[in-house]
Amino acid sequence: MVQEQLAQMQNTIDFLNQTVTNLNQMVAQLTGAHGTKPAFFAILNAYLHVGHDETLKFDLVKTNIGAGYDSFTGIFVAPNPGTYHFTSVVYNAAVGDDVIIQMNKNNNILVVGYSAITTKGERHVMNAVVQLQKGDHIFIKHRGPSVDYIRGDLHSSFSGFEI
Amino acid sequence: MVQEQLAQMQNTIDFLNQTVTNLNQMVAQLTGAHGTKPAFFAILNAYLHVGHDETLKFDLVKTNIGAGYDSFTGIFVAPNPGTYHFTSVVYNAAVGDDVIIQMNKNNNILVVGYSAITTKGERHVMNAVVQLQKGDHIFIKHRGPSVDYIRGDLHSSFSGFEI
Amino acid sequence: MVQEQLAQMQNTIDFLNQTVTNLNQMVAQLTGAHGTKPAFFAILNAYLHVGHDETLKFDLVKTNIGAGYDSFTGIFVAPNPGTYHFTSVVYNAAVGDDVIIQMNKNNNILVVGYSAITTKGERHVMNAVVQLQKGDHIFIKHRGPSVDYIRGDLHSSFSGFEI
Repeated sequence: MVQEQLAQMQNTIDFLNQTVTNLNQMVAQLTGAHGTKPAFFAILNAYLHVGHDETLKFDLVKTNIGAGYDSFTGIFVAPNPGTYHFTSVVYNAAVGDDVIIQMNKNNNILVVGYSAITTKGERHVMNAVVQLQKGDHIFIKHRGPSVDYIRGDLHSSFSGFEI
Repeated sequence: MVQEQLAQMQNTIDFLNQTVTNLNQMVAQLTGAHGTKPAFFAILNAYLHVGHDETLKFDLVKTNIGAGYDSFTGIFVAPNPGTYHFTSVVYNAAVGDDVIIQMNKNNNILVVGYSAITTKGERHVMNAVVQLQKGDHIFIKHRGPSVDYIRGDLHSSFSGFEI
Repeated sequence: MVQEQLAQMQNTIDFLNQTVTNLNQMVAQLTGAHGTKPAFFAILNAYLHVGHDETLKFDLVKTNIGAGYDSFTGIFVAPNPGTYHFTSVVYNAAVGDDVIIQMNKNNNILVVGYSAITTKGERHVMNAVVQLQKGDHIFIKHRGPSVDYIRGDLHSSFSGFEI
């Protein structure tokens, strides 16, 4: 009688043990996913000349959770796989030519941008929502043969985060 | 003595069992919430003529987690209830007229947009953060009597995600 | 023999009890984090004259989860610590002067914006991703000595959310 009770209780305990181990793993995953969301925000302080295929380097880094953005290269490298939102505002400094740029995921164009040279207030925004693997590159680059002049002084920006 | 010990242990086991069942449900909910966040990103490849009340159909779908966006209608239908962020960039192709559009939640205007016809670089952005029920419609539509010409070629875009 | 079995089972039960208590706390935290993400969306209905250092007050509040945004002051006060995304679109009403504004975190500039007075469709967007402590202030304010005229009528907007 006591042995039967003990056996039954041991079964329940074994089941609870397994379930709690699984729960621990799932909660650790959820906590990790919640706690380490990459997010960055860089703005342009120095004015920028950009020519053929050149990457725009936003020099003033205000936020860089996960250290994915590198102001030396201007490139965000995804620290985690996941779905990300990116946005970039680029101003034409109104010297030289229309500004023609694009947002890239690795070698693929996500969306392009265009700012005419009419006034020093001309600017545009490029937005994208993309699924990334760890290591994927997101960056803003110039296209075409012109050399364009980008307005700094905290006007132009590049930011993104895992959603 | 042994019977007393057994009864006490059984109580604890019953309590643990109930707690673990609750935890399992909560973690499943959290995992589901985390795993299935709708997110989409569509851009405009073909140039677009839009007239009275017409919905803009962004034809090139780059991201569509949860399959909420339909490029045939141009409408995002919320697969989940929740709080969403939406953004749309629309360029004036500089042929015809100023571009006048709006972002709608079902039959309600969320925010409007306006791009003068001055240059082919004219464009604007509309952003919104809204709480949606499953089945709510979000879309970009033309307003007013004019027929406007929207620049494609990857310039104009519509994207959103559950936050 | 039975006493040994009972002691062993009691050990396992104690361990489970402690683990389940920890799990409960972690899941409560995750559920809380997931459930109370502040998010707001305010647009400008009335046209707005803004002069030196004045804060733009977006008067029509469409979303305000967590009640962080105050349309009386135009200021968002973070209800939770966390990482936030903010975006603001501001149109020049094409009366008076170029519109020159900035997005602030407390007394620090995050990013600036500029819209020339060329057409009534001139507008710009400011985006930022920032880490906030509870109580930090985010707002859009005018800079410089001019008095500028901002286009309302649902064109200009200010929104943000915890990511």
